[in-house]
Amino acid sequence: MGTEKRVSKQIQVAIVGYGNIGRGVEAAIRQVPDMTLVGIFTRRSPEEVTSSLGTPVRHVSELDTLMDQIDVAILCGGSATDLPEQGPKYAAMFNIVDSFDTHAKIPEYFAAVDRVARQAKKISVISTGWDPGLFSLMRVLFESSLPEGMNYTFWGPGVSQGHTNAIKGVPGVKNAVQYTVPLESALQRVRSELNPELSVRDMHKRVCYVVPEKGADRERITRDIVSMPYYFAPYDTEVIFLSERELREAHSKMPHGGFVLRGGVTGAGNRELMEFSLTLDSNPEFTATVMVAYARAAYRLNREGQVGAKTVFDIAPIYLSLKSLPELLKTRL
Amino acid sequence: MGTEKRVSKQIQVAIVGYGNIGRGVEAAIRQVPDMTLVGIFTRRSPEEVTSSLGTPVRHVSELDTLMDQIDVAILCGGSATDLPEQGPKYAAMFNIVDSFDTHAKIPEYFAAVDRVARQAKKISVISTGWDPGLFSLMRVLFESSLPEGMNYTFWGPGVSQGHTNAIKGVPGVKNAVQYTVPLESALQRVRSELNPELSVRDMHKRVCYVVPEKGADRERITRDIVSMPYYFAPYDTEVIFLSERELREAHSKMPHGGFVLRGGVTGAGNRELMEFSLTLDSNPEFTATVMVAYARAAYRLNREGQVGAKTVFDIAPIYLSLKSLPELLKTRL
Repeated sequence: MGTEKRVSKQIQVAIVGYGNIGRGVEAAIRQVPDMTLVGIFTRRSPEEVTSSLGTPVRHVSELDTLMDQIDVAILCGGSATDLPEQGPKYAAMFNIVDSFDTHAKIPEYFAAVDRVARQAKKISVISTGWDPGLFSLMRVLFESSLPEGMNYTFWGPGVSQGHTNAIKGVPGVKNAVQYTVPLESALQRVRSELNPELSVRDMHKRVCYVVPEKGADRERITRDIVSMPYYFAPYDTEVIFLSERELREAHSKMPHGGFVLRGGVTGAGNRELMEFSLTLDSNPEFTATVMVAYARAAYRLNREGQVGAKTVFDIAPIYLSLKSLPELLKTRL
Repeated sequence: MGTEKRVSKQIQVAIVGYGNIGRGVEAAIRQVPDMTLVGIFTRRSPEEVTSSLGTPVRHVSELDTLMDQIDVAILCGGSATDLPEQGPKYAAMFNIVDSFDTHAKIPEYFAAVDRVARQAKKISVISTGWDPGLFSLMRVLFESSLPEGMNYTFWGPGVSQGHTNAIKGVPGVKNAVQYTVPLESALQRVRSELNPELSVRDMHKRVCYVVPEKGADRERITRDIVSMPYYFAPYDTEVIFLSERELREAHSKMPHGGFVLRGGVTGAGNRELMEFSLTLDSNPEFTATVMVAYARAAYRLNREGQVGAKTVFDIAPIYLSLKSLPELLKTRL
């Protein structure tokens, strides 16, 4: 923390896991004045991992000795295998924030983390980022503000990792990127009609950029993709073949975004429409910057004596803000 | 409350003041299952006021005897003269919610209400609705999520009462309605450029529908309006003359809305855009339905033992919701 006098203590943050989201958190912490990065903690051999921003890289086993030096651990692992193990483990040691996004397993994960966090008298903010996260917050804020109405969530245009992986599993596919694309016609119906009924096919289409293996049967690959149950069969799906180089040049970014809308009625049938949207150049970097805001909240809530698992539903906006209440009252209300 | 068994107590709500917002609150309470309206309280003679929905109308003086029968009083008076007196008065008796919107006086009003609410061990949620209110919440949520960026707020298309009244003060004007209109060109610049500099004139135009008095000099009226400092001079302003009947037929509704946007950068210069918008057929009815959600929060916070003045910044989304935490975790996160 240097020798200069600081008015308030810097929040000491650890990054656990150094993939796309971990790198995003590292960059996001540089953009805020109230946090210091203790280090990046990896399960790999630390010598094999280099931070492009110069953050010290250490082995996760060192976390055991740093319980009194870390205010918040931001867990940047994946929801499939990393977080179900890491969440409860680190919730017993630190205030944590994660982006657990296996929607069906959230109640179970919440309960597991809540139990250990309460015992440890720490805060665990789970499932932050933008969906789950800001989109979830909007769904609840919108329906609370406009009880007689209907919520709609659209995703994209953006790369879906799950669908990309599904294509990569098709025989004859060397590489692929899948874009989820919201249909403008459906968005317009939500904006102009009251509570339109929209099928899965009405709301999104899927566009697949596929690098075929040499000599592979493109027609069969296309058939295999578009007929794949759950992933592609319920949608209009476009398959575009291209070279590995074209894929790398035009489709190696991770843009994403989407829309939460709610139309409803008030009084004598007046129509009200609420809409939130994100247009993101980098899905993991935006997820990370939201996680950093919730890390601030985790630290502050715990300092107030609060414990247990929390979500975006439980956290008042002021805990996220860099501004004081008098400043917010004066300039933001 | 009838004789049927209820699982949880109905929140007993009083409406104080019966203008457009009071009527909106009355309608909004019919749309929620957890509130009962105790009555409409007016400073007028109750016999002169009729509720179109059949709610009992009583004199405000009766409120003194109902302190143990009202859980939340929703103050529906205006910010200029009603609320500065009514806020502190009723904050000493009830949990209150209001839509105080004189931005420059919010800190002073907050302090006045906070003091008496703490003494009374009640909650006062001030400055709810949509701006101040949901728009304020978005400004703070957006800047907390994306610290390196810039907030933009656009209002309309919608009727501005202050500007309408300013036109009505011009000699020769019999009646008028003023629309604030956000300029699509400016919205597009915020969406496509990073933090563009926009002047007041770049962001909004003003459209005035004016009924002139018989024989009035229309050119002079137009000059008087477009040159009016603060209200119109800084904007491109259009003045359209029409008859009283045309005004009544086409411009007697109260639509409004607007946009909160924030563009910013993450990581190595990736651009992220957050956007919230409202398209409202009825400004007062939407303001009212948001106030009702915050009335639920006021009641719940106070039951937990919290006291004092609160704003949208201090209230977590779950306090607004009709759903339980397990239901939210399962279906909304």
